[in-house]
Amino acid sequence: MFDVTFQTDLARVNAALDRLLPAAHDADGVVRDAMRYSVANGGKRIRPVLVLECCRLCGGDADSAVDAACALEMIHTYSLIHDDLPCMDDDDLRRGKPACHKQFGEAIALLAGDALLTEAFRVVSTAPFAKKSPDAALRVIALLSENAGVGGMIGGQVIDLRSEGQRITLDRLQTMDAKKTGALIRAACEIGGVIAGASEAQLSALRGYADDLGQAFQIVDDVLDVVGDEAALGKPIGSDKESEKSTYVSLLGLDAAKREAEALTARAVDRLAPFGKQAAFLRELALRLCERNA
Amino acid sequence: MFDVTFQTDLARVNAALDRLLPAAHDADGVVRDAMRYSVANGGKRIRPVLVLECCRLCGGDADSAVDAACALEMIHTYSLIHDDLPCMDDDDLRRGKPACHKQFGEAIALLAGDALLTEAFRVVSTAPFAKKSPDAALRVIALLSENAGVGGMIGGQVIDLRSEGQRITLDRLQTMDAKKTGALIRAACEIGGVIAGASEAQLSALRGYADDLGQAFQIVDDVLDVVGDEAALGKPIGSDKESEKSTYVSLLGLDAAKREAEALTARAVDRLAPFGKQAAFLRELALRLCERNA
Repeated sequence: MFDVTFQTDLARVNAALDRLLPAAHDADGVVRDAMRYSVANGGKRIRPVLVLECCRLCGGDADSAVDAACALEMIHTYSLIHDDLPCMDDDDLRRGKPACHKQFGEAIALLAGDALLTEAFRVVSTAPFAKKSPDAALRVIALLSENAGVGGMIGGQVIDLRSEGQRITLDRLQTMDAKKTGALIRAACEIGGVIAGASEAQLSALRGYADDLGQAFQIVDDVLDVVGDEAALGKPIGSDKESEKSTYVSLLGLDAAKREAEALTARAVDRLAPFGKQAAFLRELALRLCERNA
Repeated sequence: MFDVTFQTDLARVNAALDRLLPAAHDADGVVRDAMRYSVANGGKRIRPVLVLECCRLCGGDADSAVDAACALEMIHTYSLIHDDLPCMDDDDLRRGKPACHKQFGEAIALLAGDALLTEAFRVVSTAPFAKKSPDAALRVIALLSENAGVGGMIGGQVIDLRSEGQRITLDRLQTMDAKKTGALIRAACEIGGVIAGASEAQLSALRGYADDLGQAFQIVDDVLDVVGDEAALGKPIGSDKESEKSTYVSLLGLDAAKREAEALTARAVDRLAPFGKQAAFLRELALRLCERNA
């Protein structure tokens, strides 16, 4: 059941992304091709699936949330394009394929990231659900921008830049991850709820789930950088150690990091108690993300 | 009268920008300082003043448009920060001061640009006028994103990149400028109108004015790169010739370029006829921009 739902959501999101990001019709449109390239080289699509499923869980129609789900994925993708640039992490590969700037050059990659961020807001402001519920659409735009901006994701990237080659405290690592990766995961869950017209109590439960899930997700990332499968990950393991990055594994040790991810996952599952059996998908998602190998 | 109005609008915009972009309260907030630095090193603030005055011209309260005016200026500033980066124009100076990446480093400059773009949408989605008129706020967000995105400013930047070191046709130069600089000027005028609840006829007149003004503005820029005053401009003249860029001057000759700017300015002024005497400020603005020396 979980797999069918996940695949159905995935297909819906991918079809919408394909529709919302048309291919270039001439050479001047190269930036459109760069946008499509990076979005197509997608990851697990966790964030858009969370939008759809949180919307459904709060009684909404998942279809009404597809555009906002795509907007969030565009913002996630822009952040990866800019993160990979030489002046940031200088990564040549993204999921086993050339990074956007290796494929299209730095200038086009910069603009493709800018364009995806810009497009995300256009998509929400002109989405069908925005016509019916303009207030909800404005709230979605506020959530996207707050969580992607200086108080969220970008703030986390700054902490990351300032921590390069340094040993940082566990507390600071958690703050960094809560912003850098946690903020968009929280935005995903809350946006789904807002589009469904969720109550404040429901939104609060979703935020709690998202925060625990986001932190567990990051810890598992750090664990996989030590014990993961390079082929499945599409990147070499051991990169954190090589760059002397502080991670949950370097700060807690491998076993304690794994236990922490499991504890956070259990807590994420508990946060869904108010939703009862309806939340089976989100519970299973948390468990699978904790047990993933890539 | 023109000067008093302009200075009053400018003061209002600068005060709002100062409020909307708080300084960093710790070292992690360095990106906030970079955002403020680049916004403070502002140009003429033509775009936000156009927002306020087009709003007023259509019967709106200029105060209700201040946040949207600031959002547009943030988007303009982000585009300058990214344009100056080494992978783009590689400019060390912006208006006589170090470019953002010379002052803060490339990574922080990249993020400061990203953050200004993101913040622009947060500002509109949470602006006081958005609470009263959510539909107008969504339309403003759509106008910002359409004009700043692949179909507008970014599309123009791609044409610019693809034209480097090449002689291009006048037609292509016009297309590039209409997108690269024209789109945000058009957005400014239309956004002011939308916030005022302007009629379609009024919006159409404002768009016509904006398009002529934007093109005249760009031609004058090209003229000043040949005959301008380096001290007033805050940058060396002759840079277009040195980089073998096609400009209105290189394609039309200096005198014909000046005459074209004057003709476009006259047409921009004519476009305001439906507004009668109320449009005196916008007429004078077009004339002054045509006669400017920096």
